Amino acid sequence: MPVEIERKFLVRGDGWRALGTGMPYRQGYLSTTPERSVRVRLVRNKGYLTIKGLAVGVTRAEYEYEIPADEAGELLDKLCEQPLIEKTRYRVECNNLTWEIDEFAGDNAGLIVAEVELEKEHQAIALPDWIGQEVTGDPRYYNASLVSNPYSQWT
Amino acid sequence: MPVEIERKFLVRGDGWRALGTGMPYRQGYLSTTPERSVRVRLVRNKGYLTIKGLAVGVTRAEYEYEIPADEAGELLDKLCEQPLIEKTRYRVECNNLTWEIDEFAGDNAGLIVAEVELEKEHQAIALPDWIGQEVTGDPRYYNASLVSNPYSQWT
Repeated sequence: MPVEIERKFLVRGDGWRALGTGMPYRQGYLSTTPERSVRVRLVRNKGYLTIKGLAVGVTRAEYEYEIPADEAGELLDKLCEQPLIEKTRYRVECNNLTWEIDEFAGDNAGLIVAEVELEKEHQAIALPDWIGQEVTGDPRYYNASLVSNPYSQWT
Repeated sequence: MPVEIERKFLVRGDGWRALGTGMPYRQGYLSTTPERSVRVRLVRNKGYLTIKGLAVGVTRAEYEYEIPADEAGELLDKLCEQPLIEKTRYRVECNNLTWEIDEFAGDNAGLIVAEVELEKEHQAIALPDWIGQEVTGDPRYYNASLVSNPYSQWT
C-alpha cells in the first residue's frame, strides 16, 4: 500500500520566499471525508486524481493517478465541491529536505503552511527558522477541510 | 464532457441466461453522493476508477480511468465504504443493442437489472421479452445506493 509520511507546520515571516519559485495549483474534492478523500488537482498542463485514506499519526495511504488535464479542469469546474482550493506552491530545498510551502488564496488567504515528506515516521529533521507551530494531524488544516471551513471563517 | 446515456430495467424470467456468459464484478465507492460518485471496480485483472456526476434524465457525466488491479483491490478492501457490491455481469447482444445484465449477490441477492447504453437520449429501442419495469433514474437502483440500502432491506 503506497503511503505518505508527512509533517505539516505553519510558516512565519518571509525568509523562505527567496528560496524557491511558486506555481499555481487548482484543486477540488469529490470526497472530503477523512476516511477517503478524493482530490482533483490541476498544475499547469497536468491533471491528477489522488485518493487518501485515514491518517494514522503522520502516515496516510495515498494513491495518485495522472489524468488528462482537460478532464481535470472539467471535474474541477463541474463535479467537485465548491469553492475550489486555490494556492501557490513553492518548493524549497533545505538541509537535504524538500519543503512544500502552500500560500493559499481566496477564502483561505492569509494561510501559509509548509509540508515535508519523510522516509520514516520518526525521522529527525532540522527545522528552518521560518518554520512555526506544528499542525500535523490537525484536521482543520487538511485542504479537504478548507473547502467547507475556510481559514477566513476561523475564529 | 464524456457522458453516458443509459436506461435501466428490471429483468423477468430466465430467458436471457442462455444468451451470454457472466463475469464476476467487485466494486465499491469512495463517494456515494448522486452529485459526484467515485467508484472502484475490479474485473478479472483490470482495475478502474470511475467518476459520475448528477443524472439529468437518462444522461450522466462519466469519467473512467484504468488503474493497476492490485491497487484497485487495496482500495476496495481498505478505503471503500463497506460492504462492497458483488455481482455477475452478463453481456447480451439483442437487436443491435448490447444489454448489460447485473445479477447481484450478498445483501443485494435477488436483484437483477439490465442496462442499455444509447447513442442519443430519445433513441427508440426494441425491448426483449425478458425486460420488465423501467427503473431509469430511480436512485434506489444506483449501485452506489445499494451499499447503504441493499435490496434485502427494501420493504
